[in-house]
Amino acid sequence: MRNNYAKQLEDLKKELILMGSLCENMLKDALDAFEQNDDTKASVIAESDDKIDIKESEIEALCLSLILHQQPVASDLRLISSSFKIITDLERIGDQACDIAEIALRLKYEDNENFKELSEMAKQTQKMFKEAIDSFVKLDIETAKNVLAQDDIVDEHFVNMRSRLISLIEKNDHEARIPLDLLLIAKYLERIADHSCNVANWIIFAITGHHSSGEII
Amino acid sequence: MRNNYAKQLEDLKKELILMGSLCENMLKDALDAFEQNDDTKASVIAESDDKIDIKESEIEALCLSLILHQQPVASDLRLISSSFKIITDLERIGDQACDIAEIALRLKYEDNENFKELSEMAKQTQKMFKEAIDSFVKLDIETAKNVLAQDDIVDEHFVNMRSRLISLIEKNDHEARIPLDLLLIAKYLERIADHSCNVANWIIFAITGHHSSGEII
Repeated sequence: MRNNYAKQLEDLKKELILMGSLCENMLKDALDAFEQNDDTKASVIAESDDKIDIKESEIEALCLSLILHQQPVASDLRLISSSFKIITDLERIGDQACDIAEIALRLKYEDNENFKELSEMAKQTQKMFKEAIDSFVKLDIETAKNVLAQDDIVDEHFVNMRSRLISLIEKNDHEARIPLDLLLIAKYLERIADHSCNVANWIIFAITGHHSSGEII
Repeated sequence: MRNNYAKQLEDLKKELILMGSLCENMLKDALDAFEQNDDTKASVIAESDDKIDIKESEIEALCLSLILHQQPVASDLRLISSSFKIITDLERIGDQACDIAEIALRLKYEDNENFKELSEMAKQTQKMFKEAIDSFVKLDIETAKNVLAQDDIVDEHFVNMRSRLISLIEKNDHEARIPLDLLLIAKYLERIADHSCNVANWIIFAITGHHSSGEII
């Protein structure tokens, strides 16, 4: 019974890392499709979303089965409940990668400062998400805290993008839909950074029992 | 021990209903502030956000304490784990109400078709959220399913808003920041509708054990 329990806990960690890696690749593909004007790549991203939804459901089932049948001790329950929350953030990041890919199909990447700032923002967001996954793989508090420390950089990019887009509309020399689509991509990236912070906060909780919203267990 | 357990389960339901009601009021205040150009109302909304964060933390602690100390049976575990997920959606709706209030401080409501469509979208979103909370209060599957059935209406409003904003930019007779702010509010409303659907899906899971993402427990 206990051996089975240890194996199920290990499975949970592996499955979560796998789901994180699926989402990371999906986000990379969506952003590559956008920056390289690659419609073929953009159009197949939605297929990965189904895989992620199935993975989310499997991990949810595993978490609840562990709780129901194994009566985990506090430290294990922290890991299980964190995993139960983290998969929601991962699934949302997958959705947002899909949203970016959908816009990529109608928006052509241009070689100018507005698109370049968005690419910088995308790099920073991918870095945060990668480190959030790493903090789980290593169960490392410092890596998780480092993710949280970077959120302001992405928020600043969002503010800059908004200013740039106001100027772009004022200049009135672009198709009207372009600033709206660029704003949406910037918003999705800002949210992905927030989800990465959520993941980092749950890792800190899994290790310490302390969550940013207060002492829970 | 079991009496205490029953009381804690009742407390969980009450607290979740209370948190839902706080978020519902916060969203109403944010949208009223926006539609009535009421800067005083808009500027105090962030204060409610702190209350919601505290409530989220309290409910998380209650859920984990119930799991750890009371070894709930499957049906109770479904209710507890649903609550544990739902509070994330409620907290996000609170955040989005704050985001709307922040935009309301810089955007003046105008008596024209663009703002009217956004108000219609806001009414529909509030209706969905209210019904999602009701489905929890009554633990009623039909109410929850009715929430899910309305998501397309909000999505259609979003598509219409985007078309309207493209026309607005093309006309070039407004301040450039207005279409960007209107797009952001429309996006927040679309997300609030999605969160309401998440809540409804978790209610269905709590009652039936079946979640939209698959059979979990």
